[in-house]
Amino acid sequence: MSKFWSPIVSRLTPYTPGEQPKLSKLVKLNTNENPYGPSPLALAAIAAEADDSLRLYPDPEAAALKGALAEQNAKHGITTAHVFVGNGSDEVLAHAFQALLQHEEAILFPDISYSFYPTYCGLYQVAHRTVPLAADFTVRVDDYLNTAAGGIIFPNPNAPTGCLLPLSEVERLVAGQPDCVVIVDEAYVDFGGDSAIPLVARYPNLLVVQTFSKSRSLAGLRVGFAIGHPDLITALERVKNSFNSYPLDRMAIAGATASIKDQTHFDRTRLAVMASREQMVAGLAALGFEVLPSAANFVFARHPRHDAAKLAATLRGDGIIVRHFSSARIAQFLRITVGTDDACQALLDALQLHLKTLPADF
Amino acid sequence: MSKFWSPIVSRLTPYTPGEQPKLSKLVKLNTNENPYGPSPLALAAIAAEADDSLRLYPDPEAAALKGALAEQNAKHGITTAHVFVGNGSDEVLAHAFQALLQHEEAILFPDISYSFYPTYCGLYQVAHRTVPLAADFTVRVDDYLNTAAGGIIFPNPNAPTGCLLPLSEVERLVAGQPDCVVIVDEAYVDFGGDSAIPLVARYPNLLVVQTFSKSRSLAGLRVGFAIGHPDLITALERVKNSFNSYPLDRMAIAGATASIKDQTHFDRTRLAVMASREQMVAGLAALGFEVLPSAANFVFARHPRHDAAKLAATLRGDGIIVRHFSSARIAQFLRITVGTDDACQALLDALQLHLKTLPADF
Repeated sequence: MSKFWSPIVSRLTPYTPGEQPKLSKLVKLNTNENPYGPSPLALAAIAAEADDSLRLYPDPEAAALKGALAEQNAKHGITTAHVFVGNGSDEVLAHAFQALLQHEEAILFPDISYSFYPTYCGLYQVAHRTVPLAADFTVRVDDYLNTAAGGIIFPNPNAPTGCLLPLSEVERLVAGQPDCVVIVDEAYVDFGGDSAIPLVARYPNLLVVQTFSKSRSLAGLRVGFAIGHPDLITALERVKNSFNSYPLDRMAIAGATASIKDQTHFDRTRLAVMASREQMVAGLAALGFEVLPSAANFVFARHPRHDAAKLAATLRGDGIIVRHFSSARIAQFLRITVGTDDACQALLDALQLHLKTLPADF
Repeated sequence: MSKFWSPIVSRLTPYTPGEQPKLSKLVKLNTNENPYGPSPLALAAIAAEADDSLRLYPDPEAAALKGALAEQNAKHGITTAHVFVGNGSDEVLAHAFQALLQHEEAILFPDISYSFYPTYCGLYQVAHRTVPLAADFTVRVDDYLNTAAGGIIFPNPNAPTGCLLPLSEVERLVAGQPDCVVIVDEAYVDFGGDSAIPLVARYPNLLVVQTFSKSRSLAGLRVGFAIGHPDLITALERVKNSFNSYPLDRMAIAGATASIKDQTHFDRTRLAVMASREQMVAGLAALGFEVLPSAANFVFARHPRHDAAKLAATLRGDGIIVRHFSSARIAQFLRITVGTDDACQALLDALQLHLKTLPADF
């Protein structure tokens, strides 16, 4: 606290990202990164940008990237006017909170979802109301209908649960709240969900947000995007152009654009992650864990007799990092990223050992 | 305008960056880019990041880069706690407006300065009052003293004039307004000014902002930074961590860090730009232009008999792009980036030809 701070600063609750340990040799299953590297085409495109042209600003419109995203979704009526890009989907979401969710009515999101949402609300002074997930941790669409809302946002699949809301239910929500913006945050959708992008042409209140950090294996490049009605995109562009003209550097534009064009690598790696997930789910179940059904590149699991925080600390002693959230309702769960088969096996082996020797907590 | 927009969106006046033409073969003297490429060490460091590690998030703290900046400025008492980094100095400035300049009193900045400042004020609803530059386009420090201020910001050297405020005058301003934050925006300081960084240890209200886009030839990489008292940096970190945990990608962290360590390349290129600037100033003066004294990598010049907008349009017909602002007081000036000696000569040759044939406007 300092007299020089704007009053809002002391009221903020900044987001805490998953730990990025500086040690190597860890089995890092805590931040939902992809165990496989990015497309070789993306790497080549990035390396090709590392030349004297870096003295020049990037294209402030990132037209190449918007064009590639529009082309990929042209069959759904998407044009470049429907596309917004940003420095990671976190930046895209931040702009969306400021541009589209600051209204008199409170916005709605699930009580268990991406923990950055309440942080954005604090940053932009957006009133919000959380809507409890059902006992089985699924989103109940009816709870979001027939109620006043300044906007609605939820991840699909949800984070950190991994649970998927079927597209028909997403559509029922978007159609049932036509006077407010509904943001579907699809960071993990490529690991088993159906994107809501095909609905964009029919619903002017729908904004779909995706990222290159997960299924495209480019967390280190920082690229995210939104697809929605051109009116929504215009609002995002107005905020972006009042904040930073050039949020995407030359490598990010080139690498993300090339990545989209490598469908083969994309499909091979995401299908491999999905196959490993099913193996991991089976392995965890065999150890007595309850595992929520996951359509993401992570699983959310609890053990009926062992405290989650203790398990996480014990695994850390083995050099295996998973994520634990202390919030109510989910304090007994571990969120475990799907790694390579070797990493998943290392986790299962360590758990098997500890479950034999640790005293039961419950 | 749409019912889905947050009310602030329609009130914004987004910033318009200098044109980034897609044509090649232009003589591009409109966005103050460096005519020389970045350090080869930076390019090598960037290329080395284009591998499978891109699947992992970057360090959210960018510790390597903060460490290099602290080390470079250790002689002035700067530690990593004094350093903030962002996705270009525009992002750093945006966070500074939100974190440090939102107070009851209006902030002050020159009537002629970086045109992004009023845009940030609109985005964060910061009240502002512009203070006219003197008739010779210099900042009069006395005009900023003995007046209530929620904060003060100015570029030094100023943009788009290129005029430098001597460090003793900067100190007089910072010392004379100890109860508000003074932000010195030093995007161009390496081309002939003295940085205010040595004052940071003595003035807890001083924040110095710099960029890698100009003197480090890395406009395409998007890296900027701020140096100030740890209390000011904490405010910036709180806002940053409520906005985007990972604003700098892996290439940006590695490239900027390597760039700092190549003092030889830095000095050779900035001195070359300064030498070309003096040649360009002499050439413009010989053609009858009035040229403001520049300590930047651009010059600001007007011709007593020719309209600036017409000259800019005529030059564009030759494939030479310079920047023209239509705002009051400076509508008869051209802002011309210092390019290579060949580019500067092409500009002078074109002007010489046109000044002979164009009818006088005044």
